[in-house]
Amino acid sequence: MTIDRQTLRWNGWGLVTQENPYPDGAAQWIFIRDALGMKELPSTPAKRFTDISLPKSRLDAEAISRLKEICGNNQVRDDDYERAFHARGKSYHDLLYVRAGKLEIAPDAAVYPRSPEEVEQVMTFCLKHKVALVPFGGGSSVVGGVTAESGSLERAVITLDMTLMNRVLKIDKKSMTATVQAGIYGPHLEKALQEHGVTLGHYPQSFQFSTLGGWIAARGAGQQSNRYGKAEKWLVAAKLVTPKGVWQTEDYPASAAGPNMNQIVAGSEGTLGVICEATVKIHEVPQVKDYRGYLFKDFKSGARAVRAINHADVPVAMVRLSDAPETFFFQAAGSSSGGGLKAKLQGAYLKMKGLDAPCLMLIGLEGDKETVAYARQRTAAIAQKHGATAIGASAGRKWFHGRFDGPHIRDPLMDRGIGVDTLETSTHWANILPLHEKVSAAITKAMTENVPETGQRGIVMGHISHSYPDGASLYFTYIFPRKLEDEAGQWLAIKRAASDAILEGGGTISHHHGVGTDHAPWLVEEKGARGVGALQALKKEFDPEGLLNPGKLLG
Amino acid sequence: MTIDRQTLRWNGWGLVTQENPYPDGAAQWIFIRDALGMKELPSTPAKRFTDISLPKSRLDAEAISRLKEICGNNQVRDDDYERAFHARGKSYHDLLYVRAGKLEIAPDAAVYPRSPEEVEQVMTFCLKHKVALVPFGGGSSVVGGVTAESGSLERAVITLDMTLMNRVLKIDKKSMTATVQAGIYGPHLEKALQEHGVTLGHYPQSFQFSTLGGWIAARGAGQQSNRYGKAEKWLVAAKLVTPKGVWQTEDYPASAAGPNMNQIVAGSEGTLGVICEATVKIHEVPQVKDYRGYLFKDFKSGARAVRAINHADVPVAMVRLSDAPETFFFQAAGSSSGGGLKAKLQGAYLKMKGLDAPCLMLIGLEGDKETVAYARQRTAAIAQKHGATAIGASAGRKWFHGRFDGPHIRDPLMDRGIGVDTLETSTHWANILPLHEKVSAAITKAMTENVPETGQRGIVMGHISHSYPDGASLYFTYIFPRKLEDEAGQWLAIKRAASDAILEGGGTISHHHGVGTDHAPWLVEEKGARGVGALQALKKEFDPEGLLNPGKLLG
Repeated sequence: MTIDRQTLRWNGWGLVTQENPYPDGAAQWIFIRDALGMKELPSTPAKRFTDISLPKSRLDAEAISRLKEICGNNQVRDDDYERAFHARGKSYHDLLYVRAGKLEIAPDAAVYPRSPEEVEQVMTFCLKHKVALVPFGGGSSVVGGVTAESGSLERAVITLDMTLMNRVLKIDKKSMTATVQAGIYGPHLEKALQEHGVTLGHYPQSFQFSTLGGWIAARGAGQQSNRYGKAEKWLVAAKLVTPKGVWQTEDYPASAAGPNMNQIVAGSEGTLGVICEATVKIHEVPQVKDYRGYLFKDFKSGARAVRAINHADVPVAMVRLSDAPETFFFQAAGSSSGGGLKAKLQGAYLKMKGLDAPCLMLIGLEGDKETVAYARQRTAAIAQKHGATAIGASAGRKWFHGRFDGPHIRDPLMDRGIGVDTLETSTHWANILPLHEKVSAAITKAMTENVPETGQRGIVMGHISHSYPDGASLYFTYIFPRKLEDEAGQWLAIKRAASDAILEGGGTISHHHGVGTDHAPWLVEEKGARGVGALQALKKEFDPEGLLNPGKLLG
Repeated sequence: MTIDRQTLRWNGWGLVTQENPYPDGAAQWIFIRDALGMKELPSTPAKRFTDISLPKSRLDAEAISRLKEICGNNQVRDDDYERAFHARGKSYHDLLYVRAGKLEIAPDAAVYPRSPEEVEQVMTFCLKHKVALVPFGGGSSVVGGVTAESGSLERAVITLDMTLMNRVLKIDKKSMTATVQAGIYGPHLEKALQEHGVTLGHYPQSFQFSTLGGWIAARGAGQQSNRYGKAEKWLVAAKLVTPKGVWQTEDYPASAAGPNMNQIVAGSEGTLGVICEATVKIHEVPQVKDYRGYLFKDFKSGARAVRAINHADVPVAMVRLSDAPETFFFQAAGSSSGGGLKAKLQGAYLKMKGLDAPCLMLIGLEGDKETVAYARQRTAAIAQKHGATAIGASAGRKWFHGRFDGPHIRDPLMDRGIGVDTLETSTHWANILPLHEKVSAAITKAMTENVPETGQRGIVMGHISHSYPDGASLYFTYIFPRKLEDEAGQWLAIKRAASDAILEGGGTISHHHGVGTDHAPWLVEEKGARGVGALQALKKEFDPEGLLNPGKLLG
């Protein structure tokens, strides 16, 4: 395994050895407690692994033996740790279950294939024995994308852990494409590419613990998607193993030979086949990276600047605009690496008289020297035209340094009676401000209605982090006191309110997390009967037995 | 009708009143005759309309009457002119049939719906009476995309001429999108948009005589696709009428809610539904357009420069690199507007000693002043680095002025015993030069083997006109003496040789013309069994009766 499962948290984010960024006694805990209106922060630790038990595996000795014949002894695991590790993804909702040791849903075995041929043989085994198959990369889904559901009470479930299939097969520096096995983790992929002077440039917040195949399956976005594109943009071709056999998609730039099959693979979430290999667009490692901050008097003027940057075709890597609550929270709560930002922000406040609620924009530029110099000049001019105050490169550096830190804070929060979740959408520019307001309000209302004690409250903050000529994403983070007696109900009430508001407000149910189980109830409204009919027809074509990743995407 | 069908050539390109760019006696005829090794140019005029006859319409009076109830009397046409006009598209292959008056394949009526509701009612009529339905915009397909095939001998065929559905429904200048009825012709669309200061920027060579819906159906490309994108890139959402009902696709920027249905619509070629409306990305009308020429010592160094421009993220609108034969032909044969270019080219030759076969590159820049100034400086530097000689803006202006002229030359050529056809592919950069060579050789060989008389020959010339970070298109034009006793056989022999060479050589069967009937035999190899299975599943889902555009895409 490229990352030993024993070194990873089976019931939280990241490495077992990860330090708590806000240890007991840190000023941040006081701030958060007060912000949520809590009198104290209760101790709500997760169950220890030794205190949990799993249901008996539905795979008998003969089945395990056959799987070991296919993949080798060491690659078939039915011990409790492996089954618990692969039971679910990493959403707040998932963690409610795994932290409480509720593992009624767990795979009957985790199997680690080493080649597409082994995947084919496991698929044949599953078809023959009517066993469900859940493809699994880093397992970092936050929408229930890897939950080990059987889709039927009688059926066993195998989770197919793809992380042994982690080789870079080919780098073509003329065409700037690389062909890579899909189970490769982010850091391993970038190390292998950058040794050759190239990069995929796909750095989601989950980068350290997610895989190429997962990024494609979920139509994921990296933080620098303005430059490098979302998965559906950088995917050139894919090799999948489906119940109908191997599916090698076409590999041509901008073909007009009918619909492009790669656009069906991106977002297929393991429901049509197991993504084994992908050819992806790569770039030269950028000569220069330039990240810097600007403050806007409000979200509206900031959003206009993001829009203007997109409409002027300026080659940016990232434009990230926090709303006022996020800017305030970022400043006040700080982050593991955000110390110096506070002073910067305060200094800027002094210069900007009459601002109640400034909004922070971070602009990231990557590329060759000429590109970055040109983009820096143009973005600065556009920001200034929209009333921004430049606060320099240190804010950008701080963000860049801590860009994968967000998820590490969740486990300590959950240990202290605090829930935190995120969700995202996208919409057209004409609708960005109303949708931002509507979703913020819906989440706030649902949190207020679902606090454990009167006087408590939740906090919602948002940002634009991916932008396009026709619109942008909106990403929301919300923090709330956990209602310990009905945590799943509390989560669902908030999630449902947010999702209803998104659809009613003209947004998509997901910009880059995918559908999984959590968003499936909203997919019919989003795609319409014809769209869902098309997806069902594809499902029936590739997986008529409903073997693959039951319950995801189409519900 | 936005363009009265009586003013258009039913059996050729463009307006009836279009003047022959090379009238009898023009020097170009001598040049072409000699280049093809022909002793003289025979007179091979098309049959006059009054000399042809069509098979009896398979629609009876009751059917016509019902259709008139739906769409209005004037919108249902079963006269011979309308049936002949709508019989086929505008490929060389099509013209062999229509110019000879071979109209066994022709629609039984042309129906002009005025709204999606009328399309629905016509669809219901066709379902009820088992009548095939062929969607038709400008009818400019060059791959057999609108041939009025019934798909079964017994069945009547209605061609659905969409050109009365030609209104711009909405322009959103914040989101930079426009929602437009699909039957609108290029010039009408651009006029309506540019009155509001915006443009789609989609200018294929067929621009004057093709429609929005056709561009989407065929995954078409405009000449400035580097800036404005192919149809699959600028399509935001679509409304189709399918045999299963109305299909409104999702309308979100970069959603991760499963595969994007718009990518199934683009390239669907009227086989899944009739595209009635589309929301498309628009841009501000560019402040500046800058087109200029460069000469390279060979195709290889020019191709490297195109690649470098793409890899450096330079915001170009167009980069067009002619191979040596095309550069020579362009220079020697001139064009209706290319007079001054010859001297320019010759002057440049003098400066570039030792060049046998120079290649012309045209770089087009469009956008705001800053973008164009930046791109001009960077493209000039990259061209120079790759050994180019700049020949200034006049070459660019000449090309721009004559950019829609190519197809107008075909009718006079065909009148003089000369055939001309074009085809295109795309491939990765690593494969561009081998594929260019392989396809040129295959076309040359097939032309040589199929000339009417020994000593005659064909000419093939090529260019790159659409480029991407991972690869580029290759477009071939080939001219040959017509083998009058077996014209279809001659055409097919060349087409087959070229198509086989493309697939064997790692190219796609089409970069922007689509599949239609002509490329359908190569689609299985290109998409593979799984890919074709996916397309067939979609066809079965939307059109289980096989009503829509029989024989196209899937054959």
